[in-house]
Amino acid sequence: MHNENLQSSSRRHALFTGGGLVALMASPEIVLAATDAATPAPAAGAKPLPAYATWKDADAMIVHSPITVELKRKYIGNAALTPSNRLYVRNHMPPPSEDIVKDPDAWEIEIAGVAKPARLTVADLKRMGLNSVTMVLQCSGNGRAYFPHKPAGSKWTEGAAGCVEFTGVPVKSVVAALGGLAHGGRFMTSTGGEVLPKDMDPLKLVIERSVPIADTLDHALLAWELNGAPIPLANGGPLRMVVPGFFGINNVKYIKHLAFTKDQTAANIQQNEYRFTPVGVKGSPKFPTMWKMAANSWITAPYGLDKPLSAGRVQLAGVAFGGYQALKSVEVSIDGGRTWRPARWFGPDMGRFAWRNFVLSVDLKPGKYRVASRAMDAAGKKQPEKRAENEAGFNDNSWADRSFELEVA
Amino acid sequence: MHNENLQSSSRRHALFTGGGLVALMASPEIVLAATDAATPAPAAGAKPLPAYATWKDADAMIVHSPITVELKRKYIGNAALTPSNRLYVRNHMPPPSEDIVKDPDAWEIEIAGVAKPARLTVADLKRMGLNSVTMVLQCSGNGRAYFPHKPAGSKWTEGAAGCVEFTGVPVKSVVAALGGLAHGGRFMTSTGGEVLPKDMDPLKLVIERSVPIADTLDHALLAWELNGAPIPLANGGPLRMVVPGFFGINNVKYIKHLAFTKDQTAANIQQNEYRFTPVGVKGSPKFPTMWKMAANSWITAPYGLDKPLSAGRVQLAGVAFGGYQALKSVEVSIDGGRTWRPARWFGPDMGRFAWRNFVLSVDLKPGKYRVASRAMDAAGKKQPEKRAENEAGFNDNSWADRSFELEVA
Repeated sequence: MHNENLQSSSRRHALFTGGGLVALMASPEIVLAATDAATPAPAAGAKPLPAYATWKDADAMIVHSPITVELKRKYIGNAALTPSNRLYVRNHMPPPSEDIVKDPDAWEIEIAGVAKPARLTVADLKRMGLNSVTMVLQCSGNGRAYFPHKPAGSKWTEGAAGCVEFTGVPVKSVVAALGGLAHGGRFMTSTGGEVLPKDMDPLKLVIERSVPIADTLDHALLAWELNGAPIPLANGGPLRMVVPGFFGINNVKYIKHLAFTKDQTAANIQQNEYRFTPVGVKGSPKFPTMWKMAANSWITAPYGLDKPLSAGRVQLAGVAFGGYQALKSVEVSIDGGRTWRPARWFGPDMGRFAWRNFVLSVDLKPGKYRVASRAMDAAGKKQPEKRAENEAGFNDNSWADRSFELEVA
Repeated sequence: MHNENLQSSSRRHALFTGGGLVALMASPEIVLAATDAATPAPAAGAKPLPAYATWKDADAMIVHSPITVELKRKYIGNAALTPSNRLYVRNHMPPPSEDIVKDPDAWEIEIAGVAKPARLTVADLKRMGLNSVTMVLQCSGNGRAYFPHKPAGSKWTEGAAGCVEFTGVPVKSVVAALGGLAHGGRFMTSTGGEVLPKDMDPLKLVIERSVPIADTLDHALLAWELNGAPIPLANGGPLRMVVPGFFGINNVKYIKHLAFTKDQTAANIQQNEYRFTPVGVKGSPKFPTMWKMAANSWITAPYGLDKPLSAGRVQLAGVAFGGYQALKSVEVSIDGGRTWRPARWFGPDMGRFAWRNFVLSVDLKPGKYRVASRAMDAAGKKQPEKRAENEAGFNDNSWADRSFELEVA
């Protein structure tokens, strides 16, 4: 059981609200109850947005469960940034109380593994430095729906990803203000502010992730703004660790502890979960962990039409990103990958970790077209045709999985 | 009476809903009734958001009237883009019915002054080309609150401005698809989709603006997306003329007619309103019209604190833009403009027409500081210390007007 979904993990039976145990769960099929008051009525057949995320754009989202909410592909749009109310939600348990975002400046974080360890408020952090980064935030399991062995966990298609701007203090500036790194630190280890039950082994449940300092310290932020407004609880406010180019899980929400450590955390979510293993094999430290993202892309329009397009000029538009590497180019195919044409970028270049909008103008006669896009990163690595099979359904960047049929009449 | 506010203009007595006359108004003090159903209760003393804009972030906004809503300066944040729910609203009359944004692709626009005039739907436009622009959208009267002669119209401070991304078709691509410009066109004239009463002279009321083709055609879009989602009615959806670098009024909402014309429109809003005139002088065609924006900037944080800052390191952050010209640099003063220091840019560079975030890190001892910022455009033109006085309170880009006292204890 190497999936990332708490509710379907046999090693994690407990789920909690801000204060106490909610339910003991045995079956992956059980869906969590929302932790708060009433939510608006969903469309027929759809699940309701969880109470902490009712401000999301309900029409644009797919609610897999109260802790997993995806943006529909046809709502991704053609802009450089994903609006916050269309950004996916992926929690591991119900979030802490909404109270923690009422006075964001008062939130406290402990910093360890530096010359002068300290306990700082967000107000303190705001005085230490300021920067922002525009970046793709993406769940490790984005695209899991395409894996034929039906991994446990949410069946994300493309929408467990968005491109957003985080503003905060560079972690580097905080380290400098606290006298520099203590000797021997190799990992940056972040602990989330989820409330854990006192009667269970915290290592089994704690959301604590380690990333290599060497690959992250130059870019990481302790962020309090998402797209220009305080980070909402559903997306990790009041304070979130932001690790550009790394999968979502490493961007720890409501961060309450940051340590520069010699080793990776012993937490289960680091040691055994989020490991890339062969199908049928459990996760363990000997397998790669979900750190750096790979290049990916998908066409967002025209997509999900309810009738054939009429023949003529069409603008095939989408988003592409390089992952941890910068993005180099993107191509589009209308014949299922037999031939490819370079697409044109449009809109602003938001930097190495952002996605970028592309378009290819084509004249289409009546017929059926298999439409696909294929990004290449700055190191020359292209999206593969086929996904790399793995137990948990991680890291799918196959261009074929994201291709679709466009009918022209 | 050269102000831009319909409700306080002596030449405009009528206000309309989607279908009919609402009220005859004589006094600038009368506030319009919302045109639709109930709105949420406002904070004590505050006016409610109008029904078509209840999705805006109420805490962050100042409601001047049901057609004029401003973002509070302390909510501007430190990101490259202004979230749509914090973007100001400035209408000239109640907007058309919400029905027009239910099926944006069905909205129609007539194009004239081209070789092959045509009536096109948004769906047609989406096939002709695709681009996006990140740009400052700003009301001509932003900063009107600082004019000592108390011009009629909304008393905007800094918040009748935002930096947003519009996505649509380049007007140039539409012109090309329709065979090119007809002979003699010098202006691009856009007509809004407001519903006008049949028994009044439409030239007195129509929202129709002309801009010079030479300065706009290379950048203008017919846009259907704002920040990655369909443009909401309150901000001009389903289709808006977007003229980067030009004041808000030229970015005509719910555009239903676009003509390439030899002359500027005879509409009152072009001929007599939005003219830059000496105090006490009525607008007329002999005065400059509100087209190109000038460089401007303001500090957004720390701002509006309810107690003195404690001494020590502070990050003075803000936004700066060049207007029609590109932005070149920005300086910060903490002594009321006696000395200036260059600030550092942070976050992405979103291009010529966008604003950019800046920060200056300073160590402050106890005392009182007069904090200001001053942008310079690529042509070397700096924000002036003093506003240029004018009857309607337009185009205030004085750095002194935006300075404020910061108390450090």
